[in-house]
Amino acid sequence: MKRTHNCGQLRKEDVGQTVTLAGWVDRRRDHGGVIFVDLRDKYGKTQIVFNPDYNADVLKTAEQLRNEYVIYVTGKVYAREEGNTNEKLATGEIEVKADKLEILNAALTSPLAINDPNEECKENDDLRLQYRYLDLRRPWIQKKLLLKSRFLKAVYDFFYANGFENIETPCLCKSTPEGARDYLVPSRVNPGKFYALPQSPQQYKQLLMIAGMDRYFQIAKCFRDEDLRADRQPEFTQIDVEMSFVNQDEVMEMFDKFVTEVLGKVWNFEPPRHIRRMKWAEAMLKYGSDKPDLRFDLEIHDVSEIGAKSNFGVFKNCVAAGGKIRGIAAKGCVDFTRKQIDELTAYVGKYGSKGLVWMRVKENDEVETQVGKFFTTEQLNELRDAVGAKCGDMMFFIAGPEKGSPRSEEA
Amino acid sequence: MKRTHNCGQLRKEDVGQTVTLAGWVDRRRDHGGVIFVDLRDKYGKTQIVFNPDYNADVLKTAEQLRNEYVIYVTGKVYAREEGNTNEKLATGEIEVKADKLEILNAALTSPLAINDPNEECKENDDLRLQYRYLDLRRPWIQKKLLLKSRFLKAVYDFFYANGFENIETPCLCKSTPEGARDYLVPSRVNPGKFYALPQSPQQYKQLLMIAGMDRYFQIAKCFRDEDLRADRQPEFTQIDVEMSFVNQDEVMEMFDKFVTEVLGKVWNFEPPRHIRRMKWAEAMLKYGSDKPDLRFDLEIHDVSEIGAKSNFGVFKNCVAAGGKIRGIAAKGCVDFTRKQIDELTAYVGKYGSKGLVWMRVKENDEVETQVGKFFTTEQLNELRDAVGAKCGDMMFFIAGPEKGSPRSEEA
Repeated sequence: MKRTHNCGQLRKEDVGQTVTLAGWVDRRRDHGGVIFVDLRDKYGKTQIVFNPDYNADVLKTAEQLRNEYVIYVTGKVYAREEGNTNEKLATGEIEVKADKLEILNAALTSPLAINDPNEECKENDDLRLQYRYLDLRRPWIQKKLLLKSRFLKAVYDFFYANGFENIETPCLCKSTPEGARDYLVPSRVNPGKFYALPQSPQQYKQLLMIAGMDRYFQIAKCFRDEDLRADRQPEFTQIDVEMSFVNQDEVMEMFDKFVTEVLGKVWNFEPPRHIRRMKWAEAMLKYGSDKPDLRFDLEIHDVSEIGAKSNFGVFKNCVAAGGKIRGIAAKGCVDFTRKQIDELTAYVGKYGSKGLVWMRVKENDEVETQVGKFFTTEQLNELRDAVGAKCGDMMFFIAGPEKGSPRSEEA
Repeated sequence: MKRTHNCGQLRKEDVGQTVTLAGWVDRRRDHGGVIFVDLRDKYGKTQIVFNPDYNADVLKTAEQLRNEYVIYVTGKVYAREEGNTNEKLATGEIEVKADKLEILNAALTSPLAINDPNEECKENDDLRLQYRYLDLRRPWIQKKLLLKSRFLKAVYDFFYANGFENIETPCLCKSTPEGARDYLVPSRVNPGKFYALPQSPQQYKQLLMIAGMDRYFQIAKCFRDEDLRADRQPEFTQIDVEMSFVNQDEVMEMFDKFVTEVLGKVWNFEPPRHIRRMKWAEAMLKYGSDKPDLRFDLEIHDVSEIGAKSNFGVFKNCVAAGGKIRGIAAKGCVDFTRKQIDELTAYVGKYGSKGLVWMRVKENDEVETQVGKFFTTEQLNELRDAVGAKCGDMMFFIAGPEKGSPRSEEA
């Protein structure tokens, strides 16, 4: 036997064909003498029917089937009866009535519920890692590996199409001072000497540029002996790229194109042609981060000018001393309790702030604050509008020296 | 400045354009006040002319230029005068008259003759490796890296097109018994414990198959701590492939397709659709090797039947004892001296042969041999025809037990 189709392939148009499928028993249901099996492979699931009217001998063999048995099955494709079709399944309009069955391998009861579509799976991580080969059978886990495979293809296609050469560099190399700790590999033939595993192909790619390769890329394995953290692991893979005779704009332009093209291809959408560019100064001032998540909606606003006009000593003196006053609008937080505000004050204190000035935006957009007497109503309204606060919001302000300031206006 | 073209790009159609090129000075010739520079990059070479009539200031700067200087140059494209075109160069019909010149970097005299097109280069390997980044600038060396880059692209394209998933497996793994010695990586966080570097992704790919990935490929780095030999090095890269639910023929069919398609694409020729298949038994009998080079023209022929009919004891008794007689035609070796034959006899003796029977094919295809009296003329002619010997050839025969015999006729 040899499969003629995969388990995600058959459609209504195939009705009447005799086919052979191979795969794993995803689920087996015994409906009083008729056995239904969902047969699974990487490509999908197909319903197989073992029916005594159709082939009693094969039904007998099918009685042995349990989840995760690996089988070959041959049979004719039938349209499912009305009411029995399954719209969620690509093959849901058909079923295969089994005429031949070969059990390639039996299976013990799986310690993992492989056919559980729930991604918040109930097994703990240790068990999942112990039975990694079973965990990887779950379609929703497979998808992750297949996504990376598709992504890699898009990456290769992009760089080749843009004139980059894919050049492989060695893994056993000379230790060189870099950011992290090297993994070392003792040399058997040179006792007392070691190779280092590369933290990145940095040096090699620079040599390749000096050697005139012009445009290089590599999907490179990197090794760093660091303690495990959420974004750290002993080995990782990076898309390593280098270009000759270009300026900053050309590099950014290339990566705009890369990110938009590749993501659009992999997730099948029409990407924007350009990624928004933000200067470091703007990112730090508005988001307090050099890698801001733009979905984060608590933009920081500079209200130094307004503060300087007020009679509020903290603000006035701060600005006079060259400092800045910055504020945010905390949406819908008008009812924060004294306790919550104290906690926030303690929190910003950890980062060096001496205090937190807060104001509530009440009905009619009126600003209420304990330090109201130091501001004109106009100034309070200006603050409110500057941070974009609305009725129902709380405003928070911090006054302090210009810390973490941008490297330059042009940066 | 920013390059508008690369150094392999300009053609007669571009005459009149103002262009900017970037690259390395491959060669500089001073023709009494007019300087010619071959500017080189990955893509080719372009002739740049620095002429006092055209721009005297730029000529002055150009006087500083030496081989391997890195420059930007802007100028107008001119057709070369008749008789001065260079057919060997893709850009040989044009030259660029320089109007602007920027020296990006000066260079010391290179220890390697980078512009020497001779692949049998005169520098020794140590020097070439010490200045690897210069060695890699030679176009004929670059070609090798670029060939691999193109080859990798064809490999990716092939496997993706045939439904294989590209899945990356880890490098820091558990030591498992395999053919060669593992490289070990001491773990800092688990003192006294080691990672092993994979000799191949064998175990991972098997897990992936068990996990239902169906068709997998990876261009995988492998590490084996073996002593250096011509075909051994500490790390190498392999195309690692696995398929589910297939038989031997389907695997061979896929690799027929792979080899022919990829080679045809990379070297740009129409490949044969199929690679000739040879059974192990046939390869061993005809070529004495399980990876025969088919260009090798000394096919081994089994002449046991003819030998058995003769009165030559060595042959008769050998066949009677279940042995075989095999022979080759040594083309044009009819005049081998006694000394040469003795050397060959000693040589085959090292491999266990007790003797070497030789016969010369003289004019009129007549067979002459010291053991002629044990054979009829007809038998001698049969031997000659069986090994395909012609006038001017020497025939050699060995009689012996059926050693290194095929595992089975079907193997």
